[in-house]
Amino acid sequence: MEAFLEEAKASSRVLAGISGADKNRILKEMAQALRASTAEILKANALDMEDADRNDLTPALKDRLLLDESRVEGMAVAVEEIAALKEPVGRVLDGWVTEDGLKIEKVSVPIGVIGIIYESRPNVTSDTAALSFKSSNVCVLKGGKEAQHSNEAIAKVLRAVLKKNGLPEALISLIPDASREGVAKLIKMDKYVDLIVPRGGEGLIRYVSENASVPVVKHDKGQCHTYIDEDANVENAIRIAINAKVQRPGVCNAMETLLVDTAIAKEVLPLLKEAFDAAHTELKGCGETQEIIEVAPATEVDFDTEYLANILNIRVVDGVEGAIDHIVRYGSGHSEAIITENITTAEAFLNGIDAAVVYVNASTRFTDGGAFGFGAEVGISTNKLHARGPMGIEGLTTYKFKIYGSGQIR
Amino acid sequence: MEAFLEEAKASSRVLAGISGADKNRILKEMAQALRASTAEILKANALDMEDADRNDLTPALKDRLLLDESRVEGMAVAVEEIAALKEPVGRVLDGWVTEDGLKIEKVSVPIGVIGIIYESRPNVTSDTAALSFKSSNVCVLKGGKEAQHSNEAIAKVLRAVLKKNGLPEALISLIPDASREGVAKLIKMDKYVDLIVPRGGEGLIRYVSENASVPVVKHDKGQCHTYIDEDANVENAIRIAINAKVQRPGVCNAMETLLVDTAIAKEVLPLLKEAFDAAHTELKGCGETQEIIEVAPATEVDFDTEYLANILNIRVVDGVEGAIDHIVRYGSGHSEAIITENITTAEAFLNGIDAAVVYVNASTRFTDGGAFGFGAEVGISTNKLHARGPMGIEGLTTYKFKIYGSGQIR
Repeated sequence: MEAFLEEAKASSRVLAGISGADKNRILKEMAQALRASTAEILKANALDMEDADRNDLTPALKDRLLLDESRVEGMAVAVEEIAALKEPVGRVLDGWVTEDGLKIEKVSVPIGVIGIIYESRPNVTSDTAALSFKSSNVCVLKGGKEAQHSNEAIAKVLRAVLKKNGLPEALISLIPDASREGVAKLIKMDKYVDLIVPRGGEGLIRYVSENASVPVVKHDKGQCHTYIDEDANVENAIRIAINAKVQRPGVCNAMETLLVDTAIAKEVLPLLKEAFDAAHTELKGCGETQEIIEVAPATEVDFDTEYLANILNIRVVDGVEGAIDHIVRYGSGHSEAIITENITTAEAFLNGIDAAVVYVNASTRFTDGGAFGFGAEVGISTNKLHARGPMGIEGLTTYKFKIYGSGQIR
Repeated sequence: MEAFLEEAKASSRVLAGISGADKNRILKEMAQALRASTAEILKANALDMEDADRNDLTPALKDRLLLDESRVEGMAVAVEEIAALKEPVGRVLDGWVTEDGLKIEKVSVPIGVIGIIYESRPNVTSDTAALSFKSSNVCVLKGGKEAQHSNEAIAKVLRAVLKKNGLPEALISLIPDASREGVAKLIKMDKYVDLIVPRGGEGLIRYVSENASVPVVKHDKGQCHTYIDEDANVENAIRIAINAKVQRPGVCNAMETLLVDTAIAKEVLPLLKEAFDAAHTELKGCGETQEIIEVAPATEVDFDTEYLANILNIRVVDGVEGAIDHIVRYGSGHSEAIITENITTAEAFLNGIDAAVVYVNASTRFTDGGAFGFGAEVGISTNKLHARGPMGIEGLTTYKFKIYGSGQIR
């Protein structure tokens, strides 16, 4: 593993000299090569699917694993879209001249070597390899072992394009030991690896962030709230609450608890109940909620649970301060929304809540690189440092200071 | 410790509602209070100095520990200078409207609770408390036990000003257990602490970064190089090399190894020898260097050593690529300089070297918040992520996305 990572790190040096035009041309060649290798990729995928049958994987897992012609085409298109992104390296982020006459430029640069740990979907192999290459980073990939044949076939195609262009294949590689022990080693190798991005289930992410000595872009749970204020537009409030809970309950930006201002509870709770009943949402409520509508009781544990299912807690709170109290206690710092027409109340909420994304009068479901207009999403970070919230390709860069002098000494 | 940190975290909430004007007024009151409490602070310091005598501290350590009237005045002035900095919270870093019509603002916000671990100098207590308060962060301070009385006296003054202004004293506090075990606990408390900034010796920083689960802004060693290119202005080259090594050898941005282009070695090495001899620098050289001037031999270990003393390695290298080869192998990613009049060579160096700060025609000694014009320096980070290189008060902020909608759902 160490020799492998040393080679990966050493290969990063060629990326300093490669132009954006060359990178984009090579990415387009990779997309074409993926298309041209569809048959080989599907053959490898068929082996993974056979293993999946043997190992009795769930239908959902099998669906994530399965490739067909249109999914390979989708992978190629995704690589072309990444080629079309604006060059992330070399942006001048800031610049000034010091008292000593030194011209300082703060410039975006690649991070170096990025370890990406993911699960079943084989398209993550080409997506993240392309994002890394576009941002002039080396990637070392660790996919799920259930997708090993597919990932190897995809990586082989991408590496052949690198080789054809006179670049080291080590710029994109699968780690040699894809076992649990391999991961354990990888995340401790801060000498060679500059960042770990785990993409996958909660268990994986928790394991990586608790054990890594390499910095990690975490993606923890989303315990998201929507607060309906006394001054809400009730029609908006109901549409947004339904959307935040029901449109896709299994994702991190879905709402888990709805907070309702006591001043408006009697008016709005019956309407909410009607709407959520129509959406087949299982409702749980605090004592005050239960006095107004018929719902099961919500416990302390419920308020702390990320259901990832069509289940919702409702709690009546005392104004925006009550809502903030609840969110400070139970929120996970992901996405929080207030529904109000009152600008002062809105700002009190937006400023008072410590979360990656805070909304007024919109659904928390918008916390997403695509909805933000980032073109490609590396992930949604629940870190407070480096990257917070939806993370575009800029999240794969850091900066350096380039200083132009003319003989200055201190 | 846990109850203490829980209180610290809870207190952070009041900072969301406090204006910049109030913060600056309170900081100025703190400066005045430090002045007014000079006698008490010096009395506490005298107790530390007595302990220092009993424990036979070195004269250098005693000097760092000692306070007198002018040093207390210096602390007050530093707090006033921090009050005068531009407000670091609420800066709009980016902003756009999405396809869905959501207005997104990316806004700087405090990090939350910052743990600062430092050694003898008592002025770090007031400096870092003021920087944290200015950036609306809570700080939990762990100073050296040799300065315990002084730190307690200073913290007492600052906390009294908080109390007088109706703010929780927990915004600025010394950790209750200042032992090694206390530190070990503190750096694992990621539930309450958002960032650890260790300020002090290499041992402390290594211990903290290897054991913390809280993110750390590291300040590792500076193995800095200056490369004199064939196209250098020789007079500049010598002035800069002398300055980078001699002006203050004991700091991280001082040069440890001088690289000289083989094409200019015969011309420049005798001049360098003369200048460094005059500056009483102990010189070590590679084989080629030894053929041209009389110096002791430099070993592999020498090239890897941060001397922090008036000792210098010299190595002859084959052009800018040879210089980059050496720096890739031995550099610590801190500060690296090239001396050349050739713009193409300069850019090859600036782009080819992966370091926080890269210079053309200037001394590496400028890697410093003050020289960068940051007003106040939190530290010099050798992290690649969050903050890299000299770190101003902005390094104590992160960001959130504030999103203004009008009923948008997905």
